[in-house]
Amino acid sequence: MAVQLEPRPVNGFRFAGVTAGLKTKAGALDLGLIVADRPVPAAGVFSTNRVLSAAAMVSRSHAKAGRLQVIAANSGCANSFTGKQGMKLALESCKCVAAELGCVPELVAPCSTGVIGHLYDRDKYAFGARAAGLALTADGLANFARSIMTTDTRPKIASTALRLGGSEITIAGCAKGSGMIEPHMATMLAFIVTDAAVSAAILRAAIRDSLPRSFNAITVDGDMSTNDTLLVMASGAAANRPLSGRELARFRSAFNQVAYSLARGLIYDGEGATKLVTIEVRGARSDTDAEKAARKIANSPLVKTAFFGCDPNVGRILMAAGGSGAALDSEKLDLSINGVRIAARGALMIEALPAAAEKMRQREFGVRLDLRLGSGSATILTSDLSYEYIRINAEYTT
Amino acid sequence: MAVQLEPRPVNGFRFAGVTAGLKTKAGALDLGLIVADRPVPAAGVFSTNRVLSAAAMVSRSHAKAGRLQVIAANSGCANSFTGKQGMKLALESCKCVAAELGCVPELVAPCSTGVIGHLYDRDKYAFGARAAGLALTADGLANFARSIMTTDTRPKIASTALRLGGSEITIAGCAKGSGMIEPHMATMLAFIVTDAAVSAAILRAAIRDSLPRSFNAITVDGDMSTNDTLLVMASGAAANRPLSGRELARFRSAFNQVAYSLARGLIYDGEGATKLVTIEVRGARSDTDAEKAARKIANSPLVKTAFFGCDPNVGRILMAAGGSGAALDSEKLDLSINGVRIAARGALMIEALPAAAEKMRQREFGVRLDLRLGSGSATILTSDLSYEYIRINAEYTT
Repeated sequence: MAVQLEPRPVNGFRFAGVTAGLKTKAGALDLGLIVADRPVPAAGVFSTNRVLSAAAMVSRSHAKAGRLQVIAANSGCANSFTGKQGMKLALESCKCVAAELGCVPELVAPCSTGVIGHLYDRDKYAFGARAAGLALTADGLANFARSIMTTDTRPKIASTALRLGGSEITIAGCAKGSGMIEPHMATMLAFIVTDAAVSAAILRAAIRDSLPRSFNAITVDGDMSTNDTLLVMASGAAANRPLSGRELARFRSAFNQVAYSLARGLIYDGEGATKLVTIEVRGARSDTDAEKAARKIANSPLVKTAFFGCDPNVGRILMAAGGSGAALDSEKLDLSINGVRIAARGALMIEALPAAAEKMRQREFGVRLDLRLGSGSATILTSDLSYEYIRINAEYTT
Repeated sequence: MAVQLEPRPVNGFRFAGVTAGLKTKAGALDLGLIVADRPVPAAGVFSTNRVLSAAAMVSRSHAKAGRLQVIAANSGCANSFTGKQGMKLALESCKCVAAELGCVPELVAPCSTGVIGHLYDRDKYAFGARAAGLALTADGLANFARSIMTTDTRPKIASTALRLGGSEITIAGCAKGSGMIEPHMATMLAFIVTDAAVSAAILRAAIRDSLPRSFNAITVDGDMSTNDTLLVMASGAAANRPLSGRELARFRSAFNQVAYSLARGLIYDGEGATKLVTIEVRGARSDTDAEKAARKIANSPLVKTAFFGCDPNVGRILMAAGGSGAALDSEKLDLSINGVRIAARGALMIEALPAAAEKMRQREFGVRLDLRLGSGSATILTSDLSYEYIRINAEYTT
């Protein structure tokens, strides 16, 4: 039941990614469709940013019913901070896609990512919707994943299969986003589909269960986008018997693994990232305290530049934890990097620093802070802060 | 009563900055003294980071009495996260300085800045304390200001004079810090001295009044240091009559201006800063909401890289405000840069962007976000996020 970072067909779904001309770069894929053979159970979660994109507002409203047939995602334009015109455009886009595919507009969830404050061209979108409708295939997930990329350097895809309820069940998904990432749902878009026969309630529970350990446990820059969306659909084509008990737990576990793989992929491909760092805080007074400390460490520019410089900088990590609001006694804590202890019971272990620096030269490593005050814990994935992050964001207009 | 960014003598005080050898760079000033002719009214505020440096703990304890005679500040070593040994070192340093100057150790406020997790050399410190004691002069503030610099590229000094209570009164100060700056008191050190005859209570009130608009209204990287300290001493040498009413208000106003100038200097010299940006949020539901939004904008890496790129990026600014938790209606707000409106009643004004970009090419500019929901307002000073910030922090160990 290992998760693979590759697409695979999911019975009951077709996918496409085409060029509509919404991105300025000629030939770039910028409009994608995920289409179920019929209306199917669906669930979604969305950015909690007060500036929510028109697309996300419409998707949220359509997903509320627990049934969707189509996900229509475009890159090149976020349709956010576009007021009433943006809302009109999002609704029209649903109509346009629905007409192409022969369903009602309320079964279409529109998703947009790209520059904020601008509207996309209606005619280009309509052309793209037609082209995508014609291009739909069972193995089109890779193209779909490419069509939603913005500053991403590569598509993020994950899939798995397992035997459940008497049937072979597949779960596959993709995600985009590399800046404006501290989800709580942001310019992250993530889509997971399965052929399992499960209800919208089961999908909602699966999302709820996985979010704190996947998309809500990652940060590139601490910024929350206006468009964050995770949408999940289940075609039921696997025709399994109803899942409950241990089988349901296995479904959730597989779902969690796909979600985690996608979330991890977002950080691995974080803007300018040269490191993927797992920040684990344990021994906190509470899980909330642990999360506060882990997030503050994960978002500190000083800590992140130290990661970039392969500098086992105890001071910056403790400064961040100490400033997080979490209860902390600097004379009790332990700190280690990939198992190399660099602070023990509040004392810096200078002789261990070279070994820790060596561990930090790897593409991935872990920082573990044990506060030794209680049993609260939290884990956050983050990236480093590099010259390339500056280049990307000083030269690119989102 | 204009504030000048230059030192001037303050009656009743002598200053020195010498080379003790605590910094690795040969010949660098790294130990400074501010010495009053006798014990004088004093007040201080300190980092609220849970990892508080030994020096700050001792200073806080000594300042509590409302009387100090000496500020002894060193750079090159923060004496933070150094446990019991660090505390012992800070107390010994007070004794050493007190012996040189002929006062009791409880009248000495020690301040340290530099690398965290290390102890400084006792003998070098003792040598420096003697050298500084011998070097004390009335016009030594400039040397003192240099002796506390770390990644600062230049000293931050401000002074003013005014007639009050029948006397000519001077207020002068200096500050250091360019990274790990979002004070609430952090590796910022700031010192203000005056020859006014005022009580410790008046000094405390002056600090309380000025902080929200000076040192607590600035951010370079959102990180809070373990050593932040602001200390204020009043020699009384001006022999003015007691200040009250309008005269006290004028004293506070002059104090505020010196504090603001120093705080502004910290941001102007922020690590890698090429811009000084004033973020003003008005029309918020409450002042708290306004501050939340202003801080989130001021600390957003995406906003700060856009500042660096002279990009009037409406989307990123609104994304930050929208994610701050402040109440916000994206169809009501106005946004402008140095008077150029780039969003009005929730609509992006594309044609105004080139003019706004032009304003952003200046070394300083202002961003004003009017939420049009109420009368809450807040102003935060920030810097941009540049390649140089990465270079400094990936290569320097704090």
